[in-house]
Order: sequence, then structure tokens, then C-alpha cells
Amino acid sequence: MKIRPIGDRILIKFKEREEVTKSGIVLPDTVKEKPQIAEVIEVGPGGIVDGEKVEMVVKKGDKVIVSKYAGTEIKIDGEEYTIIRQDDVLAIIED
Amino acid sequence: MKIRPIGDRILIKFKEREEVTKSGIVLPDTVKEKPQIAEVIEVGPGGIVDGEKVEMVVKKGDKVIVSKYAGTEIKIDGEEYTIIRQDDVLAIIED
Amino acid sequence: MKIRPIGDRILIKFKEREEVTKSGIVLPDTVKEKPQIAEVIEVGPGGIVDGEKVEMVVKKGDKVIVSKYAGTEIKIDGEEYTIIRQDDVLAIIED
Amino acid sequence: MKIRPIGDRILIKFKEREEVTKSGIVLPDTVKEKPQIAEVIEVGPGGIVDGEKVEMVVKKGDKVIVSKYAGTEIKIDGEEYTIIRQDDVLAIIED
Amino acid sequence: MKIRPIGDRILIKFKEREEVTKSGIVLPDTVKEKPQIAEVIEVGPGGIVDGEKVEMVVKKGDKVIVSKYAGTEIKIDGEEYTIIRQDDVLAIIED
Amino acid sequence: MKIRPIGDRILIKFKEREEVTKSGIVLPDTVKEKPQIAEVIEVGPGGIVDGEKVEMVVKKGDKVIVSKYAGTEIKIDGEEYTIIRQDDVLAIIED
Amino acid sequence: MKIRPIGDRILIKFKEREEVTKSGIVLPDTVKEKPQIAEVIEVGPGGIVDGEKVEMVVKKGDKVIVSKYAGTEIKIDGEEYTIIRQDDVLAIIED
Repeated sequence: MKIRPIGDRILIKFKEREEVTKSGIVLPDTVKEKPQIAEVIEVGPGGIVDGEKVEMVVKKGDKVIVSKYAGTEIKIDGEEYTIIRQDDVLAIIED
Repeated sequence: MKIRPIGDRILIKFKEREEVTKSGIVLPDTVKEKPQIAEVIEVGPGGIVDGEKVEMVVKKGDKVIVSKYAGTEIKIDGEEYTIIRQDDVLAIIED
Repeated sequence: MKIRPIGDRILIKFKEREEVTKSGIVLPDTVKEKPQIAEVIEVGPGGIVDGEKVEMVVKKGDKVIVSKYAGTEIKIDGEEYTIIRQDDVLAIIED
Repeated sequence: MKIRPIGDRILIKFKEREEVTKSGIVLPDTVKEKPQIAEVIEVGPGGIVDGEKVEMVVKKGDKVIVSKYAGTEIKIDGEEYTIIRQDDVLAIIED
Repeated sequence: MKIRPIGDRILIKFKEREEVTKSGIVLPDTVKEKPQIAEVIEVGPGGIVDGEKVEMVVKKGDKVIVSKYAGTEIKIDGEEYTIIRQDDVLAIIED
Repeated sequence: MKIRPIGDRILIKFKEREEVTKSGIVLPDTVKEKPQIAEVIEVGPGGIVDGEKVEMVVKKGDKVIVSKYAGTEIKIDGEEYTIIRQDDVLAIIED
Repeated sequence: MKIRPIGDRILIKFKEREEVTKSGIVLPDTVKEKPQIAEVIEVGPGGIVDGEKVEMVVKKGDKVIVSKYAGTEIKIDGEEYTIIRQDDVLAIIED
């Protein structure tokens, strides 16, 4: 089974707090309850979104910082995922 | 009798919770009361919507994840359906 | 006497609840007080509306599902009508 | 003395309730206090309004149904008039 | 000393209530406290305003009906003036 | 040290009330607490702002009337300045 | 490890209050709790943002005045950073 995001949407999986800490990035106290770092699992094709051409710059496997609590959560085969728009991605983390 | 959605609208039928669980996708507790997975029954022609060209990417028979509680519910011959805009579709589920 | 809607507006007449039920479509309880199915009586010419070209896709005589309680009601020769924008039409019902 | 509306604005004069009733159109109770049918007295030239080209479709002398309580009232030589935008006109009444 | 309005702005001087009455136009009671008729003193050059080309249609010396209480008041050499956008002008009064 | 405003922003210095009065312009009582007349100290390059081409019409040294209390205040070497957008300038005062 | 901002976003580091004061710029009391002067650490590529072409004018190492409390804070290797959009930068400080 595969989730194919539509338009500029991407499917991400938030990283556990321990993993985040290990990678050297710690999120401030105010966001302690929900990690803001995620791995990109699937990427939509982009194209015309709201009448504007959107080019996808994130790729499968990227580690990203996500801006907001927004997004729709789904559970697939027991794992939690979130679908967000690419514009909710603030930055890509390169190792 | 047939429902022909206008513009970028689509007619969907939400899947029963049991069917959703069987397919390996479970929705989080917060949305327990209303399943977010639906089957596409009819698709509008797209075209110019709000002055922007909208191309339809969902097709009849697609299984889709729907973003919001929005949409207009109607009952046809005893069955419940919902009319939403294509932009309310987050992703297509492929088996 | 004739009502000629301007731009993308259409003149509709809501169908009585009994007629709606007979046609096999029943609206959910939450909208019991006002039927959402209407017949199209007159259609505006479309053209440039809010700076965007609008093409009319509904026709005189169409049976339509209407999205909202919006619209302006008027009474002509004792009959109640409503003027809405075409974008308030969700779908056309074909027999 | 003459009032020359600017852009897509028009000068209208609301019809007395008696005149409205005589013409076969009765407005619902909720708008009893202010008639919604008016005669067009002067029409602006249209042109670029809010960056969009607006073509005037109402003409001097048209009887029109007006959508809202909006508009600016003025009294000229003892008579009450209202200035509205053309987009506040819902339909033209033809005899 | 001269005030040069920027873009689509104009400098106006509201007319005293007595002058307004003399000219045959009386404003309704609800606006009794502030006359809505003004003389145009200076006119901005128009040009690109908010990304849209605005052509100035009011001229120095025009008598205008102004739509709103908006605008910024200033006092120059003891006289009160107001700066508004051209779009706040509803109509030009011709004698 | 120099402040270089970005885009359509300008750095201004509000004039003391005494200077304003001397120049023949008095602001109404409602704005007594903060003078609305300012001198332009630095001007941004304009260019594409919010996707629209903005041409700068105010110049260093201009005396301007400013529309709002908005803007960001900063203190440089003990002097107070404000950064506003050019669109917050209503008019230029010429002597 | 490197943070690569997306689109028109930039990664900044706010300067300590002491550094700000030393440089001759003092922020007013109302913003005492959070300095508004920052150093630019990383700059996104710009490109199409919200359907508009954005050209980046700030560069790595620039000292900038930032307009708002907005932005997302992250901690990298024990240091606090903030991700903002370029439009939140009011001006560049040149020494």
C-alpha cells in the first residue's frame, strides 16, 4: 500500500525526540510536546496549486524542519504519519 | 439518477470504519467519529474555477484521504454521500 | 414580466420537500428546514465576474444541489424564488 | 445639477413599496423595511475598477433588484437616492 | 507651501453644511455631523497603486461625494483638509 | 553606521511638534501625541515587493505626511527613527 | 551539519543586548525583552514563493533589523537560531 500525496503535499514522519537530540538539534521548550523535525516519506508531483506553479524542492528521505502544528495525521500499519504542504517546510537539514 | 458535480467538485462516499481498519490505515482518536477515507464516486470536469485552470487528478473509484469535515452531505436512495472540492483531497491510496 | 440575472447569477426555485423525497434524494436532518434542491429558472450571461471569465454550465430547467443558505429571496406573483451565484451550485442532478 | 458616478458605481432610486407590489414582485417579510427594487438614474463609465476591467450592463431607466443594504444615501432637491456598485445589482426586471 | 498627494490619493476640503444645502443636496440625518461633499484641492499622479494602474478621473476643483469617514485629517495654515484615496470618491457633482 | 532599508521601506524621523507648527501645518487634536510629519532619512531601492513592481517616489530629505501609527521604531546613536513602507506616506510637503 | 532554508526563508541569530548597545543602536523599551537585531547565518535560494518571484537581497553575514516576533526558533548544538522570511527584514545595518 502506498500513499500518493496530491499537488504540493508531502507525507512526513516526525522523528522521535531522542533521535532529534542525538542529531544535535534541540527544539525549544515551547514545542516540547511535538517534535518539529521530520523525514520526508512521499512527495506530491507539485504542478498548479491554487493557480500557481509549485516546484517541489524537498525529496524523499530529506530531513526537514516543519513550521507548524498543522497537517493531517494518519496511521498506516500502526505507524503515525502526517500530510503537510511543502510550504510548511522551513528548511532542510544536511548532515 | 446521476449526480454530476460542477467544476472541481467531486462526489465521495466515506468508507465505514471497519473497511478502513481492514485496509491497514487507522485514523487517530481525534477523528474517530468521522472516517476520513472515502471512495470517489463522481468527478467534476475541472476547468476554470475561481479564475484558475484546475486539472482533475482524482478519478472515479480512487480511494482518497480527505482533509476536512467540510463538504455538503446528501442522501441518495438511502445512501449518504458528500460533495467536496478536489483541493480537500490530501492523497490517493494505492493498494 | 421576466427576471434577467446579471453576470454569473441564476434565479432558482427551491423544490418542496415532498418533491425532493419522491426523486430519491433525501437531505440530512441538519438541513431539514430548507430544501437544498432547486430548479434553475433563469441563467445570467456569465462573462467577466470579479475580473475573471465565468462560463455558465447550468441551464434553464436543470435540477441542482445548492451549497448554502446564501442568496437573496424574492417573491414574484406570489411565488418564492432565490437569486444565487453559479458557484453556489454543487452539482446537477440527471434523471 | 447632475450626479456623475465614478467607475462601476450607479445612482439608483428605490421604488416605493406600493409601486413594487403593483408590479407583481413582493419582497419577503425580512426586508419589509427597505424596498430592494430600484430604478437606475445614472450609470458610471465602468473602466478599470480595482485593477479589473468592468463593463457596465445596467442602463439608465432599468428596474433592478439590489442585493444589499449597502450603498451611500444622499438627498438631492428633496429626493432620496443611493449610490451603489454595479456588483450590488442582482438582476434586471423586464416587463 | 503645497501638499503633493502620492499615488491615487487626493487632498480634499469638506464643504460647510450651509454650502451643501444651498447647492440643493442635503445629506441624511445619519451623517449630519460630517458633511460628505468636498472640493478637490490637489490630485496625486495615479500610476501603479498596489500593483494596479490607477488613472485619475477627478480633477482639481471638482465637487465630489465622498464615501466614508476614512481619510487622514490635517490642518494647513488654520484650515482643515483631508487626504483620501480616489476610490473613496463615489461621484462627481456637475452644476 | 548606515541603515539601508529593504524593498519599499523608508527610514524616517518624526519632526518635533514645534517644528511642525512653525511650518504652518497643525495636526488635529486626536493625533496630538504623535506628530505625523516626518523627514525622510533613507529610502529603500523599491523593486519587486509582494510580487508587484514598486517605484520609489519619495526622496532623501523629503518632508512627508505619514498615514499611520504603524512602523517599527529604532534608536540610533540616541536618536529615534521609524521604518515604514512607502505606502504609509500620504503626501509630500513642498515649501 | 547545515541548515538549508527553503524559498525566501533565512536562518538568523539574534544578537545579545550588550552587542546591540555597543553598536550604537538601542531598541525602545517596548521590545526590551527580545533584541530585534540579528546576524544572517544562512539564506534560502529565493525563487517562486507564493507564485511570485522573490530575489534574495540579504546575504550571509549581514546585520539586519527584523520586524516581528514571528519566526520559528530552533536550537542547534546548544545555540538558539530563528528562521524567518526575508520580508520580515526591515533594513540592513552597514558599518
